[in-house]
Parts: sequence; structure tokens; C-alpha cells
Amino acid sequence: MKISPIQIKLSDSRKEKPNPETLVFGRSFTDHMFTADYEEGKGWHSYRIVPYAPVTLDPAAIVFHYGQTVFEGLKAYRSPDGTVRLFRPEENMKRMNLSLDRLCMPKIDEEMALHALTKLIQIEKDWIPTLNGTSLYIRPFVIANEAFLGVAPAKKYQFFIILSPVGAYYKEGIHPVKILVENEFVRAVKGGTGGAKTAGNYASGLKAQEVAGQRGYSQVLWLDGIERKYVEEVGSMNIFFKIDGEVVTPAINGSILEGITRKSILQLLDYWNIPVAERKISMDEIREAYEAGKLEEIFGTGTAAVISPVGELNWDGYKMIVNGSETGPLAKQLFDTLTNIQTGKEEDPFNWIIELKNELAKLA
Amino acid sequence: MKISPIQIKLSDSRKEKPNPETLVFGRSFTDHMFTADYEEGKGWHSYRIVPYAPVTLDPAAIVFHYGQTVFEGLKAYRSPDGTVRLFRPEENMKRMNLSLDRLCMPKIDEEMALHALTKLIQIEKDWIPTLNGTSLYIRPFVIANEAFLGVAPAKKYQFFIILSPVGAYYKEGIHPVKILVENEFVRAVKGGTGGAKTAGNYASGLKAQEVAGQRGYSQVLWLDGIERKYVEEVGSMNIFFKIDGEVVTPAINGSILEGITRKSILQLLDYWNIPVAERKISMDEIREAYEAGKLEEIFGTGTAAVISPVGELNWDGYKMIVNGSETGPLAKQLFDTLTNIQTGKEEDPFNWIIELKNELAKLA
Ligand SMILES: Cc1ncc(COP(=O)(O)O)c(C=O)c1O
Ligand SMILES: Cc1ncc(COP(=O)(O)O)c(C=O)c1O
Repeated sequence: MKISPIQIKLSDSRKEKPNPETLVFGRSFTDHMFTADYEEGKGWHSYRIVPYAPVTLDPAAIVFHYGQTVFEGLKAYRSPDGTVRLFRPEENMKRMNLSLDRLCMPKIDEEMALHALTKLIQIEKDWIPTLNGTSLYIRPFVIANEAFLGVAPAKKYQFFIILSPVGAYYKEGIHPVKILVENEFVRAVKGGTGGAKTAGNYASGLKAQEVAGQRGYSQVLWLDGIERKYVEEVGSMNIFFKIDGEVVTPAINGSILEGITRKSILQLLDYWNIPVAERKISMDEIREAYEAGKLEEIFGTGTAAVISPVGELNWDGYKMIVNGSETGPLAKQLFDTLTNIQTGKEEDPFNWIIELKNELAKLA
Repeated sequence: MKISPIQIKLSDSRKEKPNPETLVFGRSFTDHMFTADYEEGKGWHSYRIVPYAPVTLDPAAIVFHYGQTVFEGLKAYRSPDGTVRLFRPEENMKRMNLSLDRLCMPKIDEEMALHALTKLIQIEKDWIPTLNGTSLYIRPFVIANEAFLGVAPAKKYQFFIILSPVGAYYKEGIHPVKILVENEFVRAVKGGTGGAKTAGNYASGLKAQEVAGQRGYSQVLWLDGIERKYVEEVGSMNIFFKIDGEVVTPAINGSILEGITRKSILQLLDYWNIPVAERKISMDEIREAYEAGKLEEIFGTGTAAVISPVGELNWDGYKMIVNGSETGPLAKQLFDTLTNIQTGKEEDPFNWIIELKNELAKLA
């Protein structure tokens, strides 16, 4: 592996770290960030770790006007003994390259990005909270920063990795959410950008989320944009249904983001010999299962909440109360197993975890 | 009308103005820009005209991650006698508010924005080129600048108006383009953001445009995302077909941007008593008209090129050569009339033009 050198410029001052007891999501950032530049003809260059600081962009930067930007999200955990663990970070870098390609943006060197990430985390390791349920959220992203008002791929980009210590997604531990099935708005459609982690997908979902929030629902469940029949995913989670002993999740179809938590859960279920299917699933089927008393559990999966059980699903006024609005046994088992693996409390039979000490030694 | 005061801070230096003979699109910007801030609870405030300068944003600014941003595009023309003309600017501010609403962003005060625009143009009027075909392109836009990694509407925004002197879209004057009908990628779908002028719509179109470019086509014609049968629009233009004496353009359906040029052309055609219809139009119908020798003209319409005749339309390898690849008489007549009205060479029977002298007097 050929690793380009990373220039490191440490900050003269250190910010106060937030109280881990009252940590929220995505509000505080560490002292340093990683960044690199891209220029057509020159490629990615100037890899550097610098003090966390504002970005300076021409008002005509393409990211503001034509939305060329992609991002990733993953977490680092620190155990009381000081070991730092990353959960499948190579999967995030791989997915980032898929997103970059869809948006006509230059790919990053995945190994270089992982190397940069581990270096940055090494510098910021004191920022990783150790309290149960807390972690360091990692946000790699790339923006087009060329100043040009023309609808064409930019010739200049900047790559960043920023870090944010975050609290448990649910303060009271895992607990069920209420979800509204969205009938008016559409998140993504085949042929669009739904399979990529790009800003526009999230902006377009805000309106539906706002309406749902006003009605007391925490998220919307997106349906397919063509027939408005088939389940896609939730805000920033994939979705699973346990029906009559079988676990079903929508198959990857180009308009759903392929979650890394989703992928891991499919592996876990398989390992446990629990029947599981990736296929199309319609709201009609879910309603029928509910009426037949066979809709045992629903849960969302994603980096932020890991597992988020669904206690109520409202489809056009028809309310399905799932597992008596309680966290189901499978959701609980998956949550416990995944978080135990992520925090090193349980063995990792899949080789998902990168322990930073080892990785840093390997890269040195 | 209650107009908030605009603070004006002029630049200490002046940039060299580009040669109007060799002007390109969207590469050079004037000496000043207008900007204003928004904060939840406080509303829009700090209206100011300042030297054109980089924007400073936290790396966690919502615009980078979740794409909350909208923009507009319009032009100012200056005649040799010094009169400055704006083409229907109130329509752009109205559309910007529709876009802002779709993206859960705070609306701007349209009159205030028009006032700010005229002030800015007054300061920058020497930047408006007078050479035939040149103009000053105006780009109002709003970005979410709150630092927060959460998928929720921001609580802080910044509004900008920047100006760019631009050359004729086609150096050799109006000339036909080749367009590829897009069968794989989809720009927008009912329930999505296609009707809003927001960054994500443009980012998602780049891939198709890249493929078309490699095959020698300058733009793609988007089809509807559901049946992939009905015509929607082109890159940044609406589309018109003249079939057997009647002019047809896709009806506004939620996934098409409602162009101001489109609107104006509908009015002009009506004024000229040329039959015109806004309705669904399928590729099958276009092909049939072509085979029957009734596809007389195709042209795109938008602020940048005004009218862009289509000389060839390629649908899945089936090439339709329109009007012998020459600019059609209707496209030519529309181009001449619109540009003559815009530049004051022809009377404006619709009250489309705002002459800046008068407007400034009115606002003073
Ligand atoms: C749209 C969307 N779907 C699903 C997911 C879940 O993906 P992952 O499990 O990789 O976090 C996310 C969050 O990253 C997302 O943004
Ligand atoms: C997607 C899209 N469609 C159509 C248009 C044409 O609109 P207008 O005539 O207002 O420039 C534009 C350009 O503004 C556009 O970006």
C-alpha cells in the first residue's frame, strides 16, 4: 500500500469537551479535521490534518448551486480500557465511492481515506466518550468547490473528515417510535440518486418529515415513487418487518440506500439461522399480515440509532400497533448484539471491527 | 411598501472587466454582492451590499450535508443609451419563494429582494455589457448555514445575489442542438422536488448529461419517472414541439420547473393567435408526428439561451432530424421577439420589462 504523507498541523488551543451525560447528536465537533484537495489533472493532493475551522468558498461554488456533494456516516467507540473500535469503516469508504461516481465526482483512494481517518482519530481519541451509548460520530464528505455557474461536473473538490462526540440516540435506551407512511411526497425513484448518499435526497425529504412531525410521528416511511405501493426506507434508516417468523426487508433496487447496518443484520440473521428475505414488500402485504396477527415486529436500522423499533405504523389513517408498542425480542437481541460487538463487549465473529491500535501499527 | 435599509460597503478596489467579445457563461463576477442573514425567531435581517468575497461556513453547515439550498437565474440588459432592463424579475422572486417553501426554508420578502437587486445593479451597472447578445446574469440564492449534523430544517440561512456578465449563449447566434432522450436516468418524479429550483435536481442530472456528451449530444430530454413515456424538460430548459401547426409543451405537473421563458412564450403565442396546448405529450406521439411529416419544430426555452432550436432528437437510436437540422421559423421569430423586447429594441406589450431608471425612482 502506497500512502501519501499527511501534513499535520495541531491546534494551538483545545476546546472544552461536552459533558457525556448530556451529549446530543451533531452539535459539537472536535479540535481537528482531515481535509484534501482535488483538481482536474492533478488528482487528490494536499492531505492534511488541521485545526477544525470554517471553510472558505466562493459564493459561486458549485456545491451551493448544483449540489455536487456526498457524505458518509460511521462511528468510533472507546472502551474504558482505551481501545478504540471502528465498525466496518471500509464499507463506508466503498459506499462513498459509489456515491461519488453517481454524482460525477472524483473517487477517493479508500485506503488513503481509512489511513487518514485512523490518524485523525488517534489525534482526537480523548474526544471519544466512553459512557454507555455514547460514541464518536465520523462524517466524511466531499464538496465541489469550483466557482462556476454552469451545470457541469466541477473540476475542483475538497474532501473532509469531521468528528462529533454523540450521545445515545435514545436517552432512555432503545424504545419504539411512531412512523407515518408517506403517500404524497416521494424521496427517490429508479433512475434517480436514491442509492447514493447525497445532500439532495435529504433536502427533498424535509417537507414530508415536517408534516409527519406536526402529526406526532417521528419519521416517515417512504414508498416507491412509481406505484406508491412498495416499502422503501425510513428517513435515515433501512426497514425490516418480522412477519410470521420470517424477517423481510426491501431488496436493493437503486432508489434505497444500502445501509451498512442493514447488511450486518442480514449477516447476523443468517448466522442465527433466522429466515430472512430481501424482496419487494407492499403496504397491502403488511396490512394483511397485521390483520392476520402475523406482523410480529418492525424496526429501522442505521448508524445513528443502530436499531429503532417501530411501535406504530400509520398508513393513511389506518394505525397498526406493533408488538403492543413495545420493543420486540428480535429488535432487542439485534440491538444488544450489534452494540456489544461495536463496543467490544462481545466477540466479533464477522471481522467487522477494526481495533485502532492494531490498524495504526499496520499502517505505520 | 416598507423597505428595510440596506447597508452599503463599497469595495476598495475594482476588478478588471472581461472583454465582452470573449465572455463565457458564469466564470466572472462583479465587484459587489448583496447578502442577508436569517435566524429563527429574528427573521431576515442585516441586508447589505458588500464587496464580492468568499463565504465562510462551518464544515458542518447543513447545505453541505443535507442540501437545503435554492436559487434563481435571470438577466439584466443594458442598451447603448445606458438604460438597464430586467426581464420579469418579480416572477423569479415568486418562484424562489415556492422553491424555499418546498425545501422547508424561510421565505424572502419579494419586494425587498427586488429592491436589493435594483440597488446592486445600480452600483454594478458598468459591469453590464452592451454588445449584442451579452447581458448580466443574476443569481439569487439561499443556503442553510447552521452547523448541525441532523436531518432537520436549519435555523439559520444566508441569502445572496451575485452578478456575472455573460456572453451570447451561442457565439454564432441561435443554432440548433442535438438532444438525446434519456431512458435510464430520471431527473424528478411527482412528489419529489422537480418543481423547485434546488441544487439536488441538477446534481442528479449530471450523470445522464455526461453519457449524452460522450455520444455527441449537448443535452438530454428527460422523460417522466413513472411510465418513462411522457416528455418533461431538458437540462435547464422547458421544451416545445410544433406539430401540424399546433405548439405543444408539457403541462406543469409537479416534476417540471415552470420556466419564466416558457410562461412568456405561451403568452406570446396566444397574442399571435398561434394554437398552443399545455398537456401531456408522449415520445410515441412525437415519433408518429415525425413519421407523418408533421413534426415541424422543436425548441427549448430558458433564461440562459432564451430559445434553443433542436435539430436532432435521438430516442433509443431512432434519430429524428427536425426541420432539416435548421432553426425553424417559429423558433427564430420567438427568439427575435423575446430578445428584442428584453433589450428594448421592440415594444413590450405585456409589461414584462422593468426599466431600472424608473424602478429606482419609484423605490427611492
Ligand atoms: C437514507 C438512508 N437510508 C439508510 C441509512 C442506514 O445506513 P447505515 O446503516 O449505513 O447507517 C442511512 C444512514 O446512513 C440513510 O441516510
Ligand atoms: C430545470 C429547468 N427547467 C427549465 C428552466 C427554464 O426556466 P426559465 O425560463 O425561468 O429560465 C430552467 C432554468 O432556469 C431550469 O433550470
